[in-house]
Amino acid sequence: MHSFEELSKQFAGRFESRHFPADPESLYEPAGYFLSIGGKRIRPILCLMGNELFGEIGSDAWQVASAIELFHNFTLIHDDIMDKAPLRRGVPTVHEKYGSATALLSGDVMLVVAYEYLNKIEEGPIHEILQLFNRTARQVCEGQQLDMDFEKKQQVDLSEYLHMIELKTSVLLAASLQMGALLGGAGKGNQEHIFEFGKHLGLAFQIQDDYLDAFGDPAKFGKQLGGDIVADKKTFLLIKAMETATPAQLDEIQALLGSRFPGKVPQMLNLFRQCGVDEWAKELKEEYIGTAFRHLEEIAVLSARKEPLKQLAGFLVQREY
Amino acid sequence: MHSFEELSKQFAGRFESRHFPADPESLYEPAGYFLSIGGKRIRPILCLMGNELFGEIGSDAWQVASAIELFHNFTLIHDDIMDKAPLRRGVPTVHEKYGSATALLSGDVMLVVAYEYLNKIEEGPIHEILQLFNRTARQVCEGQQLDMDFEKKQQVDLSEYLHMIELKTSVLLAASLQMGALLGGAGKGNQEHIFEFGKHLGLAFQIQDDYLDAFGDPAKFGKQLGGDIVADKKTFLLIKAMETATPAQLDEIQALLGSRFPGKVPQMLNLFRQCGVDEWAKELKEEYIGTAFRHLEEIAVLSARKEPLKQLAGFLVQREY
Repeated sequence: MHSFEELSKQFAGRFESRHFPADPESLYEPAGYFLSIGGKRIRPILCLMGNELFGEIGSDAWQVASAIELFHNFTLIHDDIMDKAPLRRGVPTVHEKYGSATALLSGDVMLVVAYEYLNKIEEGPIHEILQLFNRTARQVCEGQQLDMDFEKKQQVDLSEYLHMIELKTSVLLAASLQMGALLGGAGKGNQEHIFEFGKHLGLAFQIQDDYLDAFGDPAKFGKQLGGDIVADKKTFLLIKAMETATPAQLDEIQALLGSRFPGKVPQMLNLFRQCGVDEWAKELKEEYIGTAFRHLEEIAVLSARKEPLKQLAGFLVQREY
Repeated sequence: MHSFEELSKQFAGRFESRHFPADPESLYEPAGYFLSIGGKRIRPILCLMGNELFGEIGSDAWQVASAIELFHNFTLIHDDIMDKAPLRRGVPTVHEKYGSATALLSGDVMLVVAYEYLNKIEEGPIHEILQLFNRTARQVCEGQQLDMDFEKKQQVDLSEYLHMIELKTSVLLAASLQMGALLGGAGKGNQEHIFEFGKHLGLAFQIQDDYLDAFGDPAKFGKQLGGDIVADKKTFLLIKAMETATPAQLDEIQALLGSRFPGKVPQMLNLFRQCGVDEWAKELKEEYIGTAFRHLEEIAVLSARKEPLKQLAGFLVQREY
């Protein structure tokens, strides 16, 4: 059994190898550049952890883990184009550095290389893995489209927002665990539980993200607090506040949205508190964590095997930064 | 045995069905729109013909044919974004109609759906099909990148240009035939011959395309003659002319490139004729067709089974429009 940190080191070592041919450099160098800027590699490690829940980590799981990380990076390169983001992890995005056309194509080829890794599966059920991978890939695209649609909408329901986050963020975390479990020989029931564990953990993680951006401890939180409020981003907090606000509070919220008034952040935070969304977010997060852990409990393996996942889950959703 | 026209009708009937879920409409409607504007569906029919060369068309071949056509349309949607093309087949491109972000994502999801069709293979060798499909997909991306690189270069060698056309256009035609053959149970040798047949046919087809744009019969050619010359497009003709021109002719060619001088097209055509590239192009095309047919001859099946492919090849490279 390995902790997240141990698997993280092992995966980093393997993933450092070359994933692309040398030629044409104008296509593959940008793809390599993006992988070199790093990342926490959470998804591939979830695949490995899902695999180890049922036995020793097999070689198929390593291949699928690489496929998942390449897929995730493909989505980031394309999302950055769509969002016109100049920076990621403090360095220029691919389209900023190499132009949009090359960024688009580097992303495309990275997705194809992800499928090349999937095709290296030797013993596992290739059809089932492909089916899960394809469904997840489609859902992530759907989530990104909904996210873009929401930006143009005046008001978004909490249920719509939840659905979007589930597609854009949670299903890939969940499916990464499930693919590892599937390769480890898990039955349908266990696969469903590990998927639901990952899905609810993903939702809790996003709530935590939104919460920290607004109410985090400035001494611990690395970024500028209130970035989402400045950008008028639709978050769990804003959506819930708009649903529960009195007509007068709603007027105040709407007056702040889109404004560049210097007191925008503290005023919005004040409205969030008045609407009770700070407490609500903490409770909702706890609820999702509770559901996630109940699904983990239901998985029919020795409880000791679940320890690394429990530790990781606690770390992910209790972080204050 | 079926002719191209018969298979074309059958494929059109099956391919008309819905390929995408209904929701979110904002993602899938643009993808469906692009498929609805049509196309000759040459590649999937090559897959079916490659399959029928070795027996009756099996259900796996139909699935792979759909995957190939979706893949091809994915590349067109993304190419149109990269080329900033406003129109395709006389109607607005996806990015023109729905915006670049949605076009990018609709292309992405179309590629994923192509892999969903590949995963419907039931009896065929899924690993081999995936390997060939993935390699081809990567090569098509490489070809598009080289094409974009060439636009920025002053001079391109004929051998570089040939390599680019091979990647961007020929390998998908060739691999479509090979995938059909592979599913039909063809051995390695026959697979290589059908691939080479398709590859050389693709090169001949591109030469014919470049030739007709310059020297076609205006009464038969649907588009404005000399469109490539107006756009300073690097074609077989221009590249060969620049390689064989005298220093004085080269000066004239370079003075015309980038200019908007009204007599540009007839002057360039005159230079092409002086350099003998009109005759050269016809000869090179014949050479490729000859090589293609020699590979077709080498395929170890009854010669009667090859008739539909011979007819199609003749039609593709002898057309005057």
